[in-house]
Amino acid sequence: MPLKDSYTLPAAADMHVHLRNAPGPIASLVTPTIRKAGIDTVFVMPNLAPKPVVSVSEALDYKSHLLALDDKVNYLMSLYLHDSITPDEIRKAQKAGIAGVKAYPKGATTNSQWGVVSFDPFHSVLQAMEEEGVVLNLHGEVPSSATDGVTVMNAEAKFLPTLKSLVDKYPKLKIVLEHCTTADAVEAVRSCGGNVVGTITAHHLSLLVDDWSANVHHYCKPSAKSPEDRRALLQAVVNSNGKFFLGTDSAPHDISSKKGKGNTAAGVFTQPYALGYVLQALEEGITRGDISESAVTQDVLEGFFSTYGRKFYNVAPASQQIKLTRGAATVEESLKSDEAEIVPFRAGEKIWGVEWL
Amino acid sequence: MPLKDSYTLPAAADMHVHLRNAPGPIASLVTPTIRKAGIDTVFVMPNLAPKPVVSVSEALDYKSHLLALDDKVNYLMSLYLHDSITPDEIRKAQKAGIAGVKAYPKGATTNSQWGVVSFDPFHSVLQAMEEEGVVLNLHGEVPSSATDGVTVMNAEAKFLPTLKSLVDKYPKLKIVLEHCTTADAVEAVRSCGGNVVGTITAHHLSLLVDDWSANVHHYCKPSAKSPEDRRALLQAVVNSNGKFFLGTDSAPHDISSKKGKGNTAAGVFTQPYALGYVLQALEEGITRGDISESAVTQDVLEGFFSTYGRKFYNVAPASQQIKLTRGAATVEESLKSDEAEIVPFRAGEKIWGVEWL
Repeated sequence: MPLKDSYTLPAAADMHVHLRNAPGPIASLVTPTIRKAGIDTVFVMPNLAPKPVVSVSEALDYKSHLLALDDKVNYLMSLYLHDSITPDEIRKAQKAGIAGVKAYPKGATTNSQWGVVSFDPFHSVLQAMEEEGVVLNLHGEVPSSATDGVTVMNAEAKFLPTLKSLVDKYPKLKIVLEHCTTADAVEAVRSCGGNVVGTITAHHLSLLVDDWSANVHHYCKPSAKSPEDRRALLQAVVNSNGKFFLGTDSAPHDISSKKGKGNTAAGVFTQPYALGYVLQALEEGITRGDISESAVTQDVLEGFFSTYGRKFYNVAPASQQIKLTRGAATVEESLKSDEAEIVPFRAGEKIWGVEWL
Repeated sequence: MPLKDSYTLPAAADMHVHLRNAPGPIASLVTPTIRKAGIDTVFVMPNLAPKPVVSVSEALDYKSHLLALDDKVNYLMSLYLHDSITPDEIRKAQKAGIAGVKAYPKGATTNSQWGVVSFDPFHSVLQAMEEEGVVLNLHGEVPSSATDGVTVMNAEAKFLPTLKSLVDKYPKLKIVLEHCTTADAVEAVRSCGGNVVGTITAHHLSLLVDDWSANVHHYCKPSAKSPEDRRALLQAVVNSNGKFFLGTDSAPHDISSKKGKGNTAAGVFTQPYALGYVLQALEEGITRGDISESAVTQDVLEGFFSTYGRKFYNVAPASQQIKLTRGAATVEESLKSDEAEIVPFRAGEKIWGVEWL
């Protein structure tokens, strides 16, 4: 076994989670699993349906409902980049501690129907964000288009020129390229200054296109890609130096949206065991030769799981420690209530368990 | 509407079908839909489970059970390339009217666990096939491998050097590259002599990776790929000149293998409306500008659906005519018996209907 059997680390921060509407059946199931994972801070995505979070008051209202589900978690709230948002709302957001504004290209993923077609109309909003230090969170894909030759396999690569143009136009804007899935995306983030970073999920460190092709619980947007891309992500984790940190994009969907009639919802649910999934992926990556054993240091894990993300979002360091132990937990077959059932990643497998110290 | 509202054509031949074990619940459901589709001749795949068809006697036994389900269909039988097959069995197969020997790369698709790792051990068998005029049917994919950078997206392209080496080594061997899915495969077939052809499915003329990413009923091996690849397939149909003909790879799976627990079985079920699906895909291709309206001639349809495949397999021309009429049928939500349920492609949609004249 290339990794140690246990790690003591500062509590982790997951800088990209979907908790869904609160109050609501899915939020009730998944919010209590945040701390179970050894995580005390989450950046909460605003793509609720039937209406995304587009104002400070909505974000704060959402936060209060999440606190009612678990008040020991630090919820970093976000707005959905939408034409109803004004520069004034951005300034208000900054004062209210809203951590970021998420841009969804229209049609690219779950609840992106209210999303962005072009960034041009948002010029004054983006300027205000740059001035106020409010982060722009990018779902970095262009929508699929047969005419333009865009599919789920190259949608991220085709978005990267947009990232570049935003960086050129707003050089001080803090930007997160969310859930990087390709070597190209890693390279694009590296080529930018320190105000541009990338998040990496747990599942993209393990999955390839083959895995989701035959398993609906592995299907997500952006989709997992090639062995070379996965290798680049693993290498980005161990050579992050603050440029890449954890954002799981844990995306719970009721099993009826995964295995029911109709199309498969995109999303992998990793919340309860996020850190264990990453350790397992790193270990598998070492075994395959994608990364070296010596690269997975205490510093690398502390940085990727906890310190880099907090630093980027100006969040204080973790006050508590956690201990991760190999094989100390078994992933449930599903999380279930009377109203919802969610199948987690690696259901039924042994995984690293978490203790709060 | 770019196409005419009806076409009168010779009965069609589908040179790649999966009818599953006979007697058996799936064969009982799908075999009676062959003629419903306007098809009188089918090339039947030998990848049965738990044991593939590896001898002439097994193939003839299988054929007798299919005839019991519908005795108006001409079943072209095949063997599964397997180390139990001898050159003598090939000579016996030729005399018994067995039409081809199918090679499955081990691990590449449904029931390929008994398949080929290397063609080298089959040298004397392939020589016998070349001498006897027995067709080699290739599942043209290499198995996925993280080490070698092979995924479902490039598995076909990576097989093409193997096709080339077989052609070089057995220049007179009749070869079908089954279910071409890429522009590269089309080009590879075109670059070979007249003894090498390709089949094209109905569903690969419509689907892209995006379509199967979110719909288990669209997932198959080889998987559907990019808009450029789909365009190349549509162009291959209308510029076939005998190099490409219909082989639907219609692959029925019980809904429990598609929507149940566990991984998704690969296969799209197109048997009952195969020709209608192709017409619809051609029409959509014209609308998108992938092919021109004037390219879809009576000769093109007769050749692709009926005459090119028969000629390649030395089957007599069709003796009956069929009439295809726009919107004259509606695809069932599923084909169902007490023992099985199969969801067809484009379930619930209006489609071209078939009359036998």
